[in-house]
Amino acid sequence: MIYLDNAATTAPDSTAVARAQTFLQENFYNPSAIYGGGFSVHSALKEAREGLLSRIADPAKFDLIFTSGGTEGDNHAIFSGARRGNAVTTRGEHAAVFESFTELKNRGAEPRFAPICKDGRVEKEALLSLVDEKTALVSVVHVNNETGAVNDIFALARAVKQKNPRTLFHADGVQAFGKIPVWLTGDIDLYTVSAHKIGGLKGTGALLKRKNLVLSPLVYGGGQENGLRSGTENVFGIMAFSYAAEKKFASMEADGRRLTKLRERLWELLDKNIFIRISPEDGTPYILATSAVGMRGEVLVRMLWERGVVAGTGSACSSRHRFSRVLTACGYDERTMDGALRWSFSPATTEEEVDRAAEIANDVAAAFKGNL
Amino acid sequence: MIYLDNAATTAPDSTAVARAQTFLQENFYNPSAIYGGGFSVHSALKEAREGLLSRIADPAKFDLIFTSGGTEGDNHAIFSGARRGNAVTTRGEHAAVFESFTELKNRGAEPRFAPICKDGRVEKEALLSLVDEKTALVSVVHVNNETGAVNDIFALARAVKQKNPRTLFHADGVQAFGKIPVWLTGDIDLYTVSAHKIGGLKGTGALLKRKNLVLSPLVYGGGQENGLRSGTENVFGIMAFSYAAEKKFASMEADGRRLTKLRERLWELLDKNIFIRISPEDGTPYILATSAVGMRGEVLVRMLWERGVVAGTGSACSSRHRFSRVLTACGYDERTMDGALRWSFSPATTEEEVDRAAEIANDVAAAFKGNL
Repeated sequence: MIYLDNAATTAPDSTAVARAQTFLQENFYNPSAIYGGGFSVHSALKEAREGLLSRIADPAKFDLIFTSGGTEGDNHAIFSGARRGNAVTTRGEHAAVFESFTELKNRGAEPRFAPICKDGRVEKEALLSLVDEKTALVSVVHVNNETGAVNDIFALARAVKQKNPRTLFHADGVQAFGKIPVWLTGDIDLYTVSAHKIGGLKGTGALLKRKNLVLSPLVYGGGQENGLRSGTENVFGIMAFSYAAEKKFASMEADGRRLTKLRERLWELLDKNIFIRISPEDGTPYILATSAVGMRGEVLVRMLWERGVVAGTGSACSSRHRFSRVLTACGYDERTMDGALRWSFSPATTEEEVDRAAEIANDVAAAFKGNL
Repeated sequence: MIYLDNAATTAPDSTAVARAQTFLQENFYNPSAIYGGGFSVHSALKEAREGLLSRIADPAKFDLIFTSGGTEGDNHAIFSGARRGNAVTTRGEHAAVFESFTELKNRGAEPRFAPICKDGRVEKEALLSLVDEKTALVSVVHVNNETGAVNDIFALARAVKQKNPRTLFHADGVQAFGKIPVWLTGDIDLYTVSAHKIGGLKGTGALLKRKNLVLSPLVYGGGQENGLRSGTENVFGIMAFSYAAEKKFASMEADGRRLTKLRERLWELLDKNIFIRISPEDGTPYILATSAVGMRGEVLVRMLWERGVVAGTGSACSSRHRFSRVLTACGYDERTMDGALRWSFSPATTEEEVDRAAEIANDVAAAFKGNL
């Protein structure tokens, strides 16, 4: 299998999983327990927390709250941060942000959606024009999960704060963390990350928050995570997350350079009589979004699967809808959206895999075209 | 190590974990993916869901929503079910329910707390007297996690419905599921369960809901779990949960009978000049709550740990407070609460372990007493 759907989920890193096994076996204790075993698990969590946090932020300025994944982190940030007035986001968001914003209407805050460019990036001036004195929160995806476009969240956050210093700035960093360089500035209040996009497990993530920012919990109870996220900690998932991140960050820059080349190589090898490119050249190295215009992406995905190549049509989380909400907002027509094929990489992806995938993709699409 | 803190968390069942490993390795796909690998994981989740559900309810009458654990399930039930009017619970609840009720005040619903008896059971008439025409939800813990007392939630739910048929009835079944016989009647609207109390993993649980009951999500996004709980499913945790439950339910009755005997054996062997009993005889077989009156439970717990015996003081989730909120509500004095020691069992607990634990407990408490 040539697995090129790493933006949907990655294969858990076997080394990280192996290292974390001790927390399923001998160190299975409840981290709140007040005896040696509990303390030891509690310490391991503390170390994992500090390790993960310090990779993208100054631990003196930010805290990290473990969550059940990226979706929970986004929900937590938005529902805690946007309680009144209005809240601004983009039409390029993952469903975890977009649907939470839609729900804000029922909770007394007005959601506002900024348009995006053809490549998926938010239109900066349009976003800023929606921010006013009543804007409680702005949320912008760092790396668009369908197109791979990178928003300059640091510049956007700066500009938002200049317009309204009281507005909170949140970014969904799920496709950025461990893949592109991130260092949280003081303009970023909240930042969401996930484990299973970088070799960790599904069901684990974290929300980073600026220290001193008062957050209300999304989940109440025993007071874990400093009272901000109750529930017995998912110790195995958290430890595997921290080990996977350790590995990813160690080679992040080299991986990025290599995958940018592989991304471009794949694009070069794809038949231009069939495929058009959606991803920008300056997007994440990890995603190449294309379209076999006029074909059915979901059919191609299944044909590819039969041939041992795994790609996606776009966000796995919105696979229930025929047309991608995000690509619609980018301004693509239905024939282009229908044919959307997203190729997404991991550090394990090889040149040989990319070559073979391109060959099979061209083959499969030509066969499909012949049958149209 | 003689591990008798299974109400805090259990050692993951090694067979269940081994069976679930395939979902970390070859079957790591995103269950929303629209190709073979995704379908196969999706089918596995469906099977796990139906398996877990059918153990305690009629799948024609109930649905099961996977959650990140018992705490999330409780929060989801309460915040969705108690949106206006008042909501009634007991003073014997786990923090996941109790703190959620406390938060209701900020959300426009009035929380009401019914008193509990000395053994931790709710006072039925007092509970019912709090239910009126404006009661949106009643929540009663099935098995009290500190005393082991079992509430007859079926009779309580019946009585609540007789008083107000529109009132929803929720029960926190975290310490009941897989341990005592449960079959959800039509009077139960919502029921919370957790994986890591029965050999599953921390970070996994489920909320059962009566079909046709309209629930609002706690977490919004990609629409997983029928739109009621978005976020990529914790596949490994869910599969391990279903395998662990399969094993637990297969021997549940025999385990219950054996552990009732072991619980009584432990009680018999404990020095009555030191220990008093808190747990009722008709409580769960899995918990024996005691107190070494006048001693410090947390010190005893650490002394026991040094001698290879693991017990708890009460709820691991409320270990930040000196006196248990639940034991306070039971009416115990501070000296009794200070000395609280909770022994909790699993099917793996042996007679030899219980004998040895009692011997060491008597020894340690006598030493402590000598030093008072």
